Amino acid sequence: MDFEAYARELDARDPLAKFRDEFVIDDADTIYLDGNSLGRLPKRTRAILHDALENQWGERLVRGWGESWMDAPARIGGKIARLLGAQPDEVIVADSTSINFFKLVMAALAARPGRKQIVSEIINFPTDSYILQGVARILDDGHSITNVAPQDDGVVPTQTVIDAIDAAHCALVTLTHTSFKSGAIYDMQAITDAAQRAGALVLWDLSHSVGSIPIHLNDCNADLAVGCTYKYLNGGPGAPAFLYVRRDLQAQLQNPIQGWFGQKNQFAMEFEYAPAPGMARFLVGTPPMLSLLAIEGGVDILLEAGIENVRAKSIAQTEYMIALYDAWLKPFGVTLHSPRDANARGSHVSFGHPDGLRIDRALIEDMRVIPDFRPPDNLRCGIAPLYTTFTDIYRAMERMRRVLDEKLYEKYPKARPVVT
Amino acid sequence: MDFEAYARELDARDPLAKFRDEFVIDDADTIYLDGNSLGRLPKRTRAILHDALENQWGERLVRGWGESWMDAPARIGGKIARLLGAQPDEVIVADSTSINFFKLVMAALAARPGRKQIVSEIINFPTDSYILQGVARILDDGHSITNVAPQDDGVVPTQTVIDAIDAAHCALVTLTHTSFKSGAIYDMQAITDAAQRAGALVLWDLSHSVGSIPIHLNDCNADLAVGCTYKYLNGGPGAPAFLYVRRDLQAQLQNPIQGWFGQKNQFAMEFEYAPAPGMARFLVGTPPMLSLLAIEGGVDILLEAGIENVRAKSIAQTEYMIALYDAWLKPFGVTLHSPRDANARGSHVSFGHPDGLRIDRALIEDMRVIPDFRPPDNLRCGIAPLYTTFTDIYRAMERMRRVLDEKLYEKYPKARPVVT
Repeated sequence: MDFEAYARELDARDPLAKFRDEFVIDDADTIYLDGNSLGRLPKRTRAILHDALENQWGERLVRGWGESWMDAPARIGGKIARLLGAQPDEVIVADSTSINFFKLVMAALAARPGRKQIVSEIINFPTDSYILQGVARILDDGHSITNVAPQDDGVVPTQTVIDAIDAAHCALVTLTHTSFKSGAIYDMQAITDAAQRAGALVLWDLSHSVGSIPIHLNDCNADLAVGCTYKYLNGGPGAPAFLYVRRDLQAQLQNPIQGWFGQKNQFAMEFEYAPAPGMARFLVGTPPMLSLLAIEGGVDILLEAGIENVRAKSIAQTEYMIALYDAWLKPFGVTLHSPRDANARGSHVSFGHPDGLRIDRALIEDMRVIPDFRPPDNLRCGIAPLYTTFTDIYRAMERMRRVLDEKLYEKYPKARPVVT
Repeated sequence: MDFEAYARELDARDPLAKFRDEFVIDDADTIYLDGNSLGRLPKRTRAILHDALENQWGERLVRGWGESWMDAPARIGGKIARLLGAQPDEVIVADSTSINFFKLVMAALAARPGRKQIVSEIINFPTDSYILQGVARILDDGHSITNVAPQDDGVVPTQTVIDAIDAAHCALVTLTHTSFKSGAIYDMQAITDAAQRAGALVLWDLSHSVGSIPIHLNDCNADLAVGCTYKYLNGGPGAPAFLYVRRDLQAQLQNPIQGWFGQKNQFAMEFEYAPAPGMARFLVGTPPMLSLLAIEGGVDILLEAGIENVRAKSIAQTEYMIALYDAWLKPFGVTLHSPRDANARGSHVSFGHPDGLRIDRALIEDMRVIPDFRPPDNLRCGIAPLYTTFTDIYRAMERMRRVLDEKLYEKYPKARPVVT
C-alpha cells in the first residue's frame, strides 16, 4: 500500500480541511501531536484578546464587568454544553479542572451521607486521584476509595467498574471518560446506570473527551462532569475549566467553596451566604477573565466544524496511524497501548517502548515531531482533526520509524531529571 | 484656599508623575476612582500578552510550559513578596483570592485540632465571610465563628478583636487588613501578637492593602495571608491571586485541594499524593497562564516606583480629598466613612449618603467620574497614586459637588434592580 498517496488522497477530500487555516501554524514542517495536552492558538483568539485588552479592560475599565464579563462563564459554558449533549444552563466555566473536581466530589459526598465508598481507578489522571485522597483526608469520616485496576492491555473493562460498586455503601463513581494514557473510552451509559442503580452519583472527567468525541451527558442521564478547555477546545495554556451538573441536581448540591461569585444577588454584599440558583452557585471567586474569554474562539470553531465530523475524521486518522504502526513500528518492538477498536478509542494513540522517554526527546529535538511522554513508557500521539492532516501523520510516523531504525534516541539520557 | 492651584502645584512636583504614562489612559477627561476594584491596563502588559500569545502559545505550543510558564507562579509571587515584606519563597500566585482563602483556612484549622473558635469580622469582604461559613458547614465539627462588629464610625477597634480571642479555643483569627468599605487599616502587629499568644494562627486578607501601603508580614511574624492582584497591582480583570505562608509553617500545613501542581515531582505522574516542598504545595490545577502572566507588568511598575513613595503620595491625596470633602460635600449632609487619621487609612476614601447609589450613577453617566458604590450607602473613591493626579481629585470632587448641589442624581432609580 502506498501510505503517502493514501494520506494525500484523504487530505484532498477532507471536509474539515479548511479549518486548519483557523489556527496559527507558522512552521508547517513541525508535526504537532500534542493537541491533547495543549491545543493550538486559534487565529480568532487574537481578536478576542485584543478586544478584551484594549476595548474592555483598557477603555471601559471596571464597567467591563457589567458590559462584557459577568455573563461570560455561563455564555461560554452554554456553548460547551452543545459539545457535551447537555443543556446550556447545565454547564459553566470556572477555575481549574482540579478545583471543579474537588467541588463536585465534596458536593456529591455530602449529598450521599452515610455512604462511604468512592469508586475510581488506578489509571485515573493523577490530579483526580490526588484530589480524592485529599477529600478522604479532610473529611476524615471513613470514606474509602476503591480504585479499579486495568488488565494487561492497560484498559479497565466496564464490568470491572460495575462489579466494584458496593450497592449498600457507594456514594460516588468517578472516572476519566477517555483515559489519558491509553485513550480508551468508558461506556458512560452502562456505568452511569450501574452507579445510579446502586444509589450512587457519577462524576465524569471529560478532559480528554471534550472536543474530540461526541458526549451524551443528557442521554446517559449523567449526574456530574468536569473537563478541560485547553486540550481539544484550544482555549490556551491553563484556560479555566468547565463543570456540568444535571439540572435537577443543581438545587440539591452545595459548593464547598462558598465564594462571592456563587452568591445569590452578589452585589448586595450581604453577610450570610445564600447560594445562587442554577450553575452560578458553583462559581467561587473572580474569574481570570483574559484566560476565560480566550476559550470562546476555539469552542466556536468546533461548533462550526461539528463534533460528529470531527469524530469521523479522528477515527479515520487514528486508524491510519495504527496501520502505519503495524507496518513500521511494531517490527521494532513498539507496543500499542490504545484499543484497536475505534469505537473504544479517543483521539490519541499511545505507543509503548522501554525507551519511550528518549524517543520522545529525539522526536522533539531532532525530528520536529512533538508528541508527549507519560511514564513509565507511553509515547502519546494526539490527533486534533481540526488541524492535524493525514500527511502530518504520515510524516510523523515516518520520522518515528527513522528514530527507531537508526537508534537516534540513544544519545539522550534514560531518565528525566528528578525535580525534588 | 485655592484648591485647584494647590493640586496643580502638587502634581508639578510629584516624583511619581512619570508613572502615569505607564498606563493606558485614552480619555483623560474621565476620572477613574475605582482602581481599588480594577486597576488600569499597564502599557507594558500589551507586550507581555503579545509575547505569551504569539511567541509562547502560538509558536512554542506545549514547550511553553518548560520554557516560560512552569516557574511563573513562583517568579511573580517572589516579586509580590517584596511588596509584602516577605521572602520570595513565601509567596506564590494561584487561583482566586477566595480559593486561596479557603485553602489556608482549611489548612490552619487542621493545624489547630481541638480548637474550635474562628475570629473574624462582620465587615469582612463578603467572600471571606461566605468561605468561612462554608468551611464551618463542611467540617461540621463544632467550629464557630466570632464576628467582631464595628463601632458607629464603621471601624472595629484593635482591642475589640483582641478581646474576642478565646485563649483556650481560638484556632484562627482572620481579617481584611484594609477594610473594603471604610479603608480602615488594622494593627497587624498587635493582632498577630495577640492571636499567637492565644495559640491561634492569623490569616490576613491583603486585597485592599497590597500595592497601596507598605506591608510588613515578616516583621510582624504574620502566619498566613492572601490577596488580590487586579486592584492596586493592575493585573487585569480576575487575575490570579497570591498566597503567603511563613517559611517555617509551610511544611506543617496541608493544602485541602490536593491537585497535581502541588505534587512533588509532578510529571512522574505517580498515584499517591506527596506534597511538593515549599509554596508549590499550595498550587492546585493548571494555572490560567494568560491572566497570570499579565500580572507581572503592574507588579514591576510598583517595584520601580517604590511602595514607600506610593504610600506618601496616597496619604497626601486622601488628605487632599478629605479637605475637599470638608469644604464641599459635608454641607450637603455627606458623611465621611473613612478614618481621619491618615495612618489608619488605606488608599480609598468612602463617603456616606442615603442616595449613594444614585449619586454613583449620576457621576458615572453624566459626569465622567467613576467611583463605586457598596451597599448600603457607601460611595467609594479609590486613589491609585501611580496614575491618579491631584487634579483628577480636584475635578472629581468638583463634579461630585455639582451632582449634590444640582440634585442631578434624582433622575435615577433609588434601588439597584435585584438579580434573583
